[in-house]
Amino acid sequence: MGRHLLGLEALDEDAITGVLDTAEGLKDLALRPVKKVPTLRGRTVCNLFYEDSTRTRTSFELAEKRLSADVLNFSAQGSSVEKGESLKDTALTLEAMGVDAIVIRHEASGAPEQLTRWVDAHVLNAGDGAHQHPTQALLDLFTIRERLGRLAGLHVAVVGDVVHSRVARSVVQGLVTMGAKVSVVGPRTLVPSTVAQWTRNPDAVEVRADLDGVIGDVDVCYLLRVQRERQQQQAFPSTREYARLWGLDRARLARLPDHAVVMHPGPMNRGVEISAEAADAPNAVITDQVTNGIAVRMSCLYLLLGGEQR
Amino acid sequence: MGRHLLGLEALDEDAITGVLDTAEGLKDLALRPVKKVPTLRGRTVCNLFYEDSTRTRTSFELAEKRLSADVLNFSAQGSSVEKGESLKDTALTLEAMGVDAIVIRHEASGAPEQLTRWVDAHVLNAGDGAHQHPTQALLDLFTIRERLGRLAGLHVAVVGDVVHSRVARSVVQGLVTMGAKVSVVGPRTLVPSTVAQWTRNPDAVEVRADLDGVIGDVDVCYLLRVQRERQQQQAFPSTREYARLWGLDRARLARLPDHAVVMHPGPMNRGVEISAEAADAPNAVITDQVTNGIAVRMSCLYLLLGGEQR
Amino acid sequence: MGRHLLGLEALDEDAITGVLDTAEGLKDLALRPVKKVPTLRGRTVCNLFYEDSTRTRTSFELAEKRLSADVLNFSAQGSSVEKGESLKDTALTLEAMGVDAIVIRHEASGAPEQLTRWVDAHVLNAGDGAHQHPTQALLDLFTIRERLGRLAGLHVAVVGDVVHSRVARSVVQGLVTMGAKVSVVGPRTLVPSTVAQWTRNPDAVEVRADLDGVIGDVDVCYLLRVQRERQQQQAFPSTREYARLWGLDRARLARLPDHAVVMHPGPMNRGVEISAEAADAPNAVITDQVTNGIAVRMSCLYLLLGGEQR
Repeated sequence: MGRHLLGLEALDEDAITGVLDTAEGLKDLALRPVKKVPTLRGRTVCNLFYEDSTRTRTSFELAEKRLSADVLNFSAQGSSVEKGESLKDTALTLEAMGVDAIVIRHEASGAPEQLTRWVDAHVLNAGDGAHQHPTQALLDLFTIRERLGRLAGLHVAVVGDVVHSRVARSVVQGLVTMGAKVSVVGPRTLVPSTVAQWTRNPDAVEVRADLDGVIGDVDVCYLLRVQRERQQQQAFPSTREYARLWGLDRARLARLPDHAVVMHPGPMNRGVEISAEAADAPNAVITDQVTNGIAVRMSCLYLLLGGEQR
Repeated sequence: MGRHLLGLEALDEDAITGVLDTAEGLKDLALRPVKKVPTLRGRTVCNLFYEDSTRTRTSFELAEKRLSADVLNFSAQGSSVEKGESLKDTALTLEAMGVDAIVIRHEASGAPEQLTRWVDAHVLNAGDGAHQHPTQALLDLFTIRERLGRLAGLHVAVVGDVVHSRVARSVVQGLVTMGAKVSVVGPRTLVPSTVAQWTRNPDAVEVRADLDGVIGDVDVCYLLRVQRERQQQQAFPSTREYARLWGLDRARLARLPDHAVVMHPGPMNRGVEISAEAADAPNAVITDQVTNGIAVRMSCLYLLLGGEQR
Repeated sequence: MGRHLLGLEALDEDAITGVLDTAEGLKDLALRPVKKVPTLRGRTVCNLFYEDSTRTRTSFELAEKRLSADVLNFSAQGSSVEKGESLKDTALTLEAMGVDAIVIRHEASGAPEQLTRWVDAHVLNAGDGAHQHPTQALLDLFTIRERLGRLAGLHVAVVGDVVHSRVARSVVQGLVTMGAKVSVVGPRTLVPSTVAQWTRNPDAVEVRADLDGVIGDVDVCYLLRVQRERQQQQAFPSTREYARLWGLDRARLARLPDHAVVMHPGPMNRGVEISAEAADAPNAVITDQVTNGIAVRMSCLYLLLGGEQR
């Protein structure tokens, strides 16, 4: 896996398969009476969150605790960051404190990579701007493989506001690397025409505006979150129009092949990108995604930190 | 005890005695060199607080850590809750993460019960609206039993703003279930005439407006907190009038029987519902209540989670 | 060391040497595979922070976790403190909960000492008003001794806003107790003429306004943080004037003796009290100070709590 986990670009098929296989073993841990392993005892992991994200931070925190690491939560609010301390000085402080890994969420694309220039600690990107969210993509790949048995040859629709979504970028890259075919679907203003160029195999990606033309043929329907804070922007359709054209409503849910799964990175806007029926349907794997997030994050931490001592 | 701890209504005398007896054993733990037992090692308890309450959250957190559980603090501030996520989606996320128990504080009465419909995890109510605060009542019962040797046959005055108080509802129910006689005392506008109907034995409850008529006869004087945020409401007497008529001042303290104890759930408004003399008097057991809170919460977690593995 | 750590005044040469020697042993822990010792297992340490200070709180938290203590973080924000609870009631609550030590940061000088009157728990001052910041001074002494081999006989310049600085007071006292000679340098409005009287040996302290007259002769140049929130005050020079007269810029850095070290308690204002060149120079030991902070805080906790059981 290398020394850091910054994005999906750097991971080839073997690397991704390694993460997923390790996660599979770690997922079994949840079935045991004591859901802990001593792998990272005495190691310190700092969750450095410049943006709020209870869901991702909590998932990382549980993964760290199940590996027996000491956990340090460091949020930008109420910290010296508010006094104007730079990311560099914060990084040097954490490094000097002997932190073994830093999980960073930052509003600026590229912040995690910058961090690697200043610290020896392992850096795990927990979401940077509109750039990457690698552990989200890895848990999505894990969930698909778990449900459908494979990734190669599948047809996946990724639907919504792709241009502002770090999740979309990571997921599309990961899917293509693993041999899937991806239809990227959404309003023309919100799907960049260059999306195929992000991937290792541009021929595996098609961009289209209509969901109805593809919904009957996919193995996976992956809905992106509508970020309400962007609704004011001109490029954005109204909530009602969005739901009508790109939402997974009852009618579209019925047209999905029986074996196909519905995915969403959460938190959902019920009634906008996903109807209540779809969210609670038997082929929705949205809570599986959450469950698998812990095993996949344990896997990443284990692969980056497990074998070494500083 | 059943699967969840939602309120005092569901607990009969045997169930309450079971919690208090178990707490008695766990309280001894505090005297040992290492104040920890491995009972909940590898189990995760989430403290899900939609209202601030350092006192209750800290007490639960210590109880969880002394049982060796992994603790997850999840406050509504700075979380996806602020982005408008529903309680249901938060619950499903925590459930999917494999959380074993959820301790919930919520401003809406009935929120903990709703939670039990969505999750398999054990739910412990840490205070919901003006409804219930069961662990507070249980620690109060524990403290009285510890000091006075029994509960049955005692005479307890519960004084103050009963109508808005989840503590009052839980305490009055618990006392009556255990065989005590309760005088509920306070301004007519703040004591519902139906209070006796809350309990298993309405004949054991009397409602009255004057504290002076009962103060010389009680075994326990339990003062409710004046919630300053309610002082603007018309139903509420002025602070000065409140202190004069229902406050435990020096004169009333002198009239209390020698063996009687003074209780308050904290935090106190010294000079309003309780004078400084009363708060610091030898028969005040207010810090005992805090101490016992940890043992009682350990007892509840132990009885709900201790015997099983998910 | 006594029962509490309130300030540097009470510590004589032997006591300080004891802390530094113990810290030396504990620092080696960081080199071991599992960076933990079970010394404080089952003991609870509460970090009670009335002012934000991620740096100091994080350092204490890591020290506590490496000693295997249970850690309780209690910040004034979002707590019953905001509901107007007094420090006394908070203290009595923590005491009743069986907390073994309280690490307190408070905006009022003397708050930690007040706390010792209300609790049996050990109290460690993590900074009180403009009064004391003892663990900062101890980690500074440790860092100097580590780099230069001794403290006695050294010449140290402490530069900046001394009058508002708890760091300055603690550091100057500690240096003089250990036999160093101190030049306190800064704007006349910001350096009290009585500074020598703080120490055990007033003859070891000189007060002066010009940094240039002393920079070529010192073993240690210790720069205090310019607190930007004070810049509006009349006594305070402009940022530009401050940097020109008291900042460690490139020219002054060049005039420092080769063996001399540059220190700063952080977070730094690069370009004000310290230039980027000085902050990143090979003789800057600013990140060593951060690293050593953990070992020194472990040492203080160990010496206060390690030998006893409550």
